[in-house]
Amino acid sequence: MAEPISKRDLEFMLYEWLDVESLTERERFAEHSRDTFDAVLELAADLATKRFAPVNRLGDTEEPYVGDDGAVVLPEEIQSGIAEFIKAGLGAGSFDESLGGMQLPTVVSLAAQSWFQAANAGMSSYSFLTIGNANLIAEYGTPEQIDTWVRPMVEGRYFGTMCLSEPQAGSSLADITTKATPTDDGTYRITGTKMWISGGDHELGENIVHLVLAKAPGGKPGVKGISLFIVPKYLPDGTRNDVALVGLNHKMGQRATTNCLLNFGDGTYGTADSPVPGAESTPPAHSVPGAVGYLVGEEHKGLQYMFHMMNEARIGVGFLATSLGYAGYLASLEYAKVRTQGRPVDQKDPTSKPVPIIEHADVKRMLLAQKAYVEGALALGLYSGKLVDLQQTGDANEAARAGLLLDVLTPISKSWPSQWCLTANDLAIQIHGGYGYTREFPVEQFYRDNRLNPIHEGAHGIHGLDLLGRKVVMNGGTGLELLANTITQTIDRAASNPGTAALADELRRRVERLVTVTMQVWSAGDVAVSLANATAYLEATGHIVIAWMWLEQLLAVADKAGDFYDGKRVAAQYFFTYELPKVDAQFDLLAALDRTTLDARPEIF
Amino acid sequence: MAEPISKRDLEFMLYEWLDVESLTERERFAEHSRDTFDAVLELAADLATKRFAPVNRLGDTEEPYVGDDGAVVLPEEIQSGIAEFIKAGLGAGSFDESLGGMQLPTVVSLAAQSWFQAANAGMSSYSFLTIGNANLIAEYGTPEQIDTWVRPMVEGRYFGTMCLSEPQAGSSLADITTKATPTDDGTYRITGTKMWISGGDHELGENIVHLVLAKAPGGKPGVKGISLFIVPKYLPDGTRNDVALVGLNHKMGQRATTNCLLNFGDGTYGTADSPVPGAESTPPAHSVPGAVGYLVGEEHKGLQYMFHMMNEARIGVGFLATSLGYAGYLASLEYAKVRTQGRPVDQKDPTSKPVPIIEHADVKRMLLAQKAYVEGALALGLYSGKLVDLQQTGDANEAARAGLLLDVLTPISKSWPSQWCLTANDLAIQIHGGYGYTREFPVEQFYRDNRLNPIHEGAHGIHGLDLLGRKVVMNGGTGLELLANTITQTIDRAASNPGTAALADELRRRVERLVTVTMQVWSAGDVAVSLANATAYLEATGHIVIAWMWLEQLLAVADKAGDFYDGKRVAAQYFFTYELPKVDAQFDLLAALDRTTLDARPEIF
Repeated sequence: MAEPISKRDLEFMLYEWLDVESLTERERFAEHSRDTFDAVLELAADLATKRFAPVNRLGDTEEPYVGDDGAVVLPEEIQSGIAEFIKAGLGAGSFDESLGGMQLPTVVSLAAQSWFQAANAGMSSYSFLTIGNANLIAEYGTPEQIDTWVRPMVEGRYFGTMCLSEPQAGSSLADITTKATPTDDGTYRITGTKMWISGGDHELGENIVHLVLAKAPGGKPGVKGISLFIVPKYLPDGTRNDVALVGLNHKMGQRATTNCLLNFGDGTYGTADSPVPGAESTPPAHSVPGAVGYLVGEEHKGLQYMFHMMNEARIGVGFLATSLGYAGYLASLEYAKVRTQGRPVDQKDPTSKPVPIIEHADVKRMLLAQKAYVEGALALGLYSGKLVDLQQTGDANEAARAGLLLDVLTPISKSWPSQWCLTANDLAIQIHGGYGYTREFPVEQFYRDNRLNPIHEGAHGIHGLDLLGRKVVMNGGTGLELLANTITQTIDRAASNPGTAALADELRRRVERLVTVTMQVWSAGDVAVSLANATAYLEATGHIVIAWMWLEQLLAVADKAGDFYDGKRVAAQYFFTYELPKVDAQFDLLAALDRTTLDARPEIF
Repeated sequence: MAEPISKRDLEFMLYEWLDVESLTERERFAEHSRDTFDAVLELAADLATKRFAPVNRLGDTEEPYVGDDGAVVLPEEIQSGIAEFIKAGLGAGSFDESLGGMQLPTVVSLAAQSWFQAANAGMSSYSFLTIGNANLIAEYGTPEQIDTWVRPMVEGRYFGTMCLSEPQAGSSLADITTKATPTDDGTYRITGTKMWISGGDHELGENIVHLVLAKAPGGKPGVKGISLFIVPKYLPDGTRNDVALVGLNHKMGQRATTNCLLNFGDGTYGTADSPVPGAESTPPAHSVPGAVGYLVGEEHKGLQYMFHMMNEARIGVGFLATSLGYAGYLASLEYAKVRTQGRPVDQKDPTSKPVPIIEHADVKRMLLAQKAYVEGALALGLYSGKLVDLQQTGDANEAARAGLLLDVLTPISKSWPSQWCLTANDLAIQIHGGYGYTREFPVEQFYRDNRLNPIHEGAHGIHGLDLLGRKVVMNGGTGLELLANTITQTIDRAASNPGTAALADELRRRVERLVTVTMQVWSAGDVAVSLANATAYLEATGHIVIAWMWLEQLLAVADKAGDFYDGKRVAAQYFFTYELPKVDAQFDLLAALDRTTLDARPEIF
């Protein structure tokens, strides 16, 4: 079986390109060194390969179900693998040492994470959701909340979720109806139904910490009236909180991750009036029914806090898509090297020996496309991770700059890999021919698993609206300005090198066009027209960003010799020749303020 | 549940555009009228909706398996539905009346077929493979073979397969090793293993007629040494022929269609030396072991005959992809109309009512894209069907012209829908959001079912080589000339109409570029360079052909008023604005004779 991800490529990105070692000069990471980073990566590679990858198919075929006792049943191998991951401390990578974490740079944690996501996507999600949850509470929670909820999550005893969507409100958080009613003791009672909750129920740990968006009295309509609550499955006194699993969704992929419909406060687990049978004690008497919830921060600012976790989750989803793309690429590469079939198109002698299919131009195209997509996406994911580190440890200027760039890049970091690493998985199937369509080979599962990623954490189209409607125009357009300037710095460096000058020119032209087109789009004077083709804008900007990532990699390659570096050169060439030109047609569409979709009446369908 | 396909659109294509009624002026179809066509379509719609669509998910979840007695087990509902299809005579649509068929035009048969393919892809394949098989034998078989094998297939008592691939030779037929040994009585003994045989075993009828490619002694190496044999599961005397089911493949989709590994002549069903236990009689004594096979036509010309079935199957696969795309489009359209979520981007009041998602520009984009893909592909499929009818019934000139155009279009009719109607299914999922990723909604199955289509009947890349390497250059380039001239005739008609003149200009520019680029590509003087980007050539030409199909539809729409016709106008506008410009970058790549993929060394990956 092919490795799930390339150790060599991770090393290149971390050490030869992103100079992650230099982060150890910063106080936060001063205890670390390349040795400690390598040890973590080695541990991740070993555990992912031995305990996650071998049960990837099992997690697909033995889907979680609700047992007779109402508890979620996961295969034993999945449970024990996650337990081992936690025991190794890998869930705690980037947390403060004071909280029991390793205080690793985020960029290094992400690299370690890629091993698990590539090895077993469905199994990897429990811990990574927990990390995002704990990070949010660590940032906005009270010291007591941090002690009560964050520490056990960092220790791996508790798990975490994010509860945003409701059956009637998926992407539209303004319309959530889950209610939070304050009580005399300062806690709240939460009532409502939450949907699509990944990791929403299971028996992996001692407790599950739900972060729940709900509306408390007195808030404005819409997203400005949303508050955020910690709603644990078990209360601190050990009694069961009134959070009930209503059912599990049956998905096309990512099946090892439970996906739940949860009821908060429907009385399943009782209030003072209806105690839970067999519970050691009952919850305190409440004047109002509902699940007990603890407010995070201030009322009505919940969405703002939630974005902390959502932004992290968005980069995480992009990274998951990348990892799945990478796993498929390596699987199809291995297959293409060993499978013999056919002959070169200029070989007319039918008695000549069939060649490995990697020698056919069209198979090389499909491998180069995958390589260009997955290594480009990996670069963007790790670059984003380094921005988190700079934001956290830099001086005010550096931190602000990193934070703003991260904001602008987040919709792309989420959506570009979700689109193109899924395309990579499609090509991985295609290289396998009929075998790729069978469940005897891993690539069809990668493809199914990856299909989730353009949907969750904001559907694809939402990120177009976010990028064009908010990110590039925020603070008077400084978001776009910063992005364009940062890319242009890379272009300027590349322009002075004969090996990269031509590519630099190609990219410069497109960055200039991006800036011009953004102004043209916003000159429409009608927001509906400006945003009508926001998805095309997202996709074109994404291709420019990935081209930039390839130019960055080429600068790190410089004149180094060898197959690995040649591979980077050829994949970059591929991206600039086959992919980047696609943006021209998208920019033409945007510049024309095309109204085809906007004006289409629903009745014509 | 949404209808699987649009009755209104089929009527438009058949009667308002392709003028199928005029075919009844031809002798072959003189017994028919619009009434008989409509009756067949109505029957298909009724049966597909009532017996095929309701068990589409069942065919996916209850996968065929091999029972204890070695026979394939299919769900009862699948078996009885197919039986009803046969009883209604729908498998016999286009066969000669003298063979027991309805002698329908192929274009009408295809339209009827789309109902079944859209309603239940996996269930539909058995009959359509049988039709292709019977058509081949009807064309090249002896009168005795036609009586023995074709009649029972037309009657629906026997089923048919095509056995080409072998484990070591998928796309590369030159390398098949299945052997055919002649015997004294004029029959052959077939030994070898065939893979990926759809419908290769089941208990749906009395017999299965395998058409098997094998090598008889004395043939040249490569494809010119291949002969074609009829190898039935049961011999005419009722004894079991030595064709053994080795196993079923477990696929990502299209699960209701069994997909088999078959051994021919491995002794499972005995020779004279090892009679089959319990058989009523044993096969005649043979000097050589093997399954009994009957030669079709002459030795060593087998691949030429097989292309008769392969070409039909290729158009059929494209049509299957189209039907699945159409089913997904209609399902997502229905969902988009009833699902409310969010507000228009220029609506700032969060207390305003959420709108049906069909009102969001990006959802309309995803619907328009699907509509443009699936209706464009349907047009191409039906147009190809009409070419078959013209080839069969026209005078020498018309028949030759239709046949040549069909040859040129076949790689596109197969591959374009397989690529873009799969993309349509992807968009259908996206419109559903998280629901689309669950198995409670049909779209994820359409997507999985459709993923097979770029693989079988010649993988995607093979059709690029076929189009650029053979079809457009055959007979001194008359293939391309005919295609360009035929498209240009449409363009000329459209150019004189104010409503279509601008689109006609857009297409004319691309057709001219296609001709120029073809010459540039072939001026390379090195076939490996010329064919290095054959897939880009296939895809660009495909987009031009579909744009042509849209222009054809617009001419049929003319100035008719109403939502349906407006829908055609908007979808055409969409295709020309969002899709057609994509070909420019592909032509640039081709014109540059880009060697990126060709020159990539396998070691750099």
